[in-house]
Amino acid sequence: MSVLACPIPFAADEFILLGHGSGGRLSAKLMEDVFLPAFRNPALERMDDQAVFNVPAGRVAMSTDTYVVKPMFFPGGNLGELAVYGTVNDLAVGGATPRYLSAGFVLEEGLSLETLKQLVNSMAAAARRCGVEIVTGDTKVVEKGSGDGVFINTTGVGFVPEGVSYSAANVRPGDRIVLNGSLGEHGITILAQREGLELGGDLRSDAAPLHEPCAAVMKAAPRLHAMRDLTRGGLSSALNEIARSARVGIEIEERAIPICDQVRGACELFGLDPLYVANEGKMITFVPEEEAQAAVAAMQANELGRQARIIGVVTERHPRMVVLRTTLGTERIVDMLAQDQLPRIC
Amino acid sequence: MSVLACPIPFAADEFILLGHGSGGRLSAKLMEDVFLPAFRNPALERMDDQAVFNVPAGRVAMSTDTYVVKPMFFPGGNLGELAVYGTVNDLAVGGATPRYLSAGFVLEEGLSLETLKQLVNSMAAAARRCGVEIVTGDTKVVEKGSGDGVFINTTGVGFVPEGVSYSAANVRPGDRIVLNGSLGEHGITILAQREGLELGGDLRSDAAPLHEPCAAVMKAAPRLHAMRDLTRGGLSSALNEIARSARVGIEIEERAIPICDQVRGACELFGLDPLYVANEGKMITFVPEEEAQAAVAAMQANELGRQARIIGVVTERHPRMVVLRTTLGTERIVDMLAQDQLPRIC
Repeated sequence: MSVLACPIPFAADEFILLGHGSGGRLSAKLMEDVFLPAFRNPALERMDDQAVFNVPAGRVAMSTDTYVVKPMFFPGGNLGELAVYGTVNDLAVGGATPRYLSAGFVLEEGLSLETLKQLVNSMAAAARRCGVEIVTGDTKVVEKGSGDGVFINTTGVGFVPEGVSYSAANVRPGDRIVLNGSLGEHGITILAQREGLELGGDLRSDAAPLHEPCAAVMKAAPRLHAMRDLTRGGLSSALNEIARSARVGIEIEERAIPICDQVRGACELFGLDPLYVANEGKMITFVPEEEAQAAVAAMQANELGRQARIIGVVTERHPRMVVLRTTLGTERIVDMLAQDQLPRIC
Repeated sequence: MSVLACPIPFAADEFILLGHGSGGRLSAKLMEDVFLPAFRNPALERMDDQAVFNVPAGRVAMSTDTYVVKPMFFPGGNLGELAVYGTVNDLAVGGATPRYLSAGFVLEEGLSLETLKQLVNSMAAAARRCGVEIVTGDTKVVEKGSGDGVFINTTGVGFVPEGVSYSAANVRPGDRIVLNGSLGEHGITILAQREGLELGGDLRSDAAPLHEPCAAVMKAAPRLHAMRDLTRGGLSSALNEIARSARVGIEIEERAIPICDQVRGACELFGLDPLYVANEGKMITFVPEEEAQAAVAAMQANELGRQARIIGVVTERHPRMVVLRTTLGTERIVDMLAQDQLPRIC
């Protein structure tokens, strides 16, 4: 096969061809037919190679993630939605108000155009829900077998309010750890989809944007030290990273951690620990003791934090170590896994 | 094969495993061994899920590109370098001073760690050359056969100086078009590599950062209307996009356009038109007539613009159309191709 792409214009209305990533007329058509109608905004419509927007003097947060979740559609969400919420959440837990996103697509030759449209429309709806604009983008196409449907990178920019400076490194002994809801629903939903499992009930991914719970808790607990969303590696990875970064110990109560029956059942079936399973709409907040109840109340007032509660405390004992007090009253170390149990979860 | 990843820690020092993208200990090790030593800066070292930096009040430019060039290493550059220069160039031609980059990696399981290190070290060197910092990143790993070595997304942020507002839409009849050098070297280098061709001489990709030529021409021609780098689709695609965006006609002189012998020869061999072949260190500037000579002189004073010259003019005739006056004295329309002749050029 020659490296010179053959022109196959007749299929270009239904399937992605290499030419859709070439910068020629097919690329322009993809922009006009798929991306512009969904994402429409003045910065994008300039059609230059960069978006330009106004910023106030101050601090800006920037975060990037590439989303490769498999399958691309699952109960409770899809790759496109996840690509918006995930990056919005990484900005929001940094205390930033998410504002602008870029979107970089890597499409596999032969992808159905209908699938791409569904993902793009989901991204647009997710962006509206989060109050962000997708202002610049890029599309590359790789040969069939050199990719896997669609990979989406989103990079986000948000504004950090004056006086706000959260970081894992700020966490202090005595901080209470507030979790906004039950663990493992995204990871187990993906696992069940891949394995063709029927888990009963209506288990679905918890994929959701966290900018509102973040804003609510920031208002209610102005002295909070850090927030973190719980994605790859689940609660345990986030806690271990923070324990290392702040050089503190962390103690959590198994009894306090909400986990729904289907997740618990699936974890038993597969020998998984729900503390390590991925989430896409869960977060922890580290708050000084005197503001902890206010933080919980603020979370609970939000739809995405109804089950919010204090699940643990930061301690000077056993620095860099996360310890779980089990329902049996014993203690065990919750270490960071060498690798997650489930690849391509996000 | 189960979806549950097996732990294969023994190979993790030499090859990328699915676990390197999992957010667990292997991910942390990749960060500590590969990314941090190369990119080291305060924003990245905070190890939070977002970088935070100060901005002055004003306008910010943002640009994104995913790089999937094949092969990953080629004469004159590699994927890592391209991923930095490409995004720096998209910011620079917008009149922005590039400052911060994010880097999102999609790695294919089984990739050699040595290859990744080479690319990452090239990115770090390229970033230093451009005066930008890689402040936040993400790594995903996909199964063998679901990717192709390495894909890199970079998204850049830069500051636009007060009073600067360039856009294709600003281009006006009478503008002179300044090109900074000879066409097609990147595309033909990649083609020769893929086909195992020996073209003679020392043909190499023109991959280079354009922030200095951009700054120089901005100073010399303060009333310039637009700049554009010539990547996928080459000179012709850039000109056609601008003709449409500004609703103007464009006329270029074949005689004025520098093309080296090897590129000319290879184009004849493959039936390619050099006007459509990709570049990674070439740009055009649209300047009012009275500033055109100053723009050329400023370009020529820069190492990346020694061959700079005026190659054409913007006209009210034939709006949205690009016309080439050939060396034979005839005219032909330079249309936008349906698709580029070469996939995965950047």
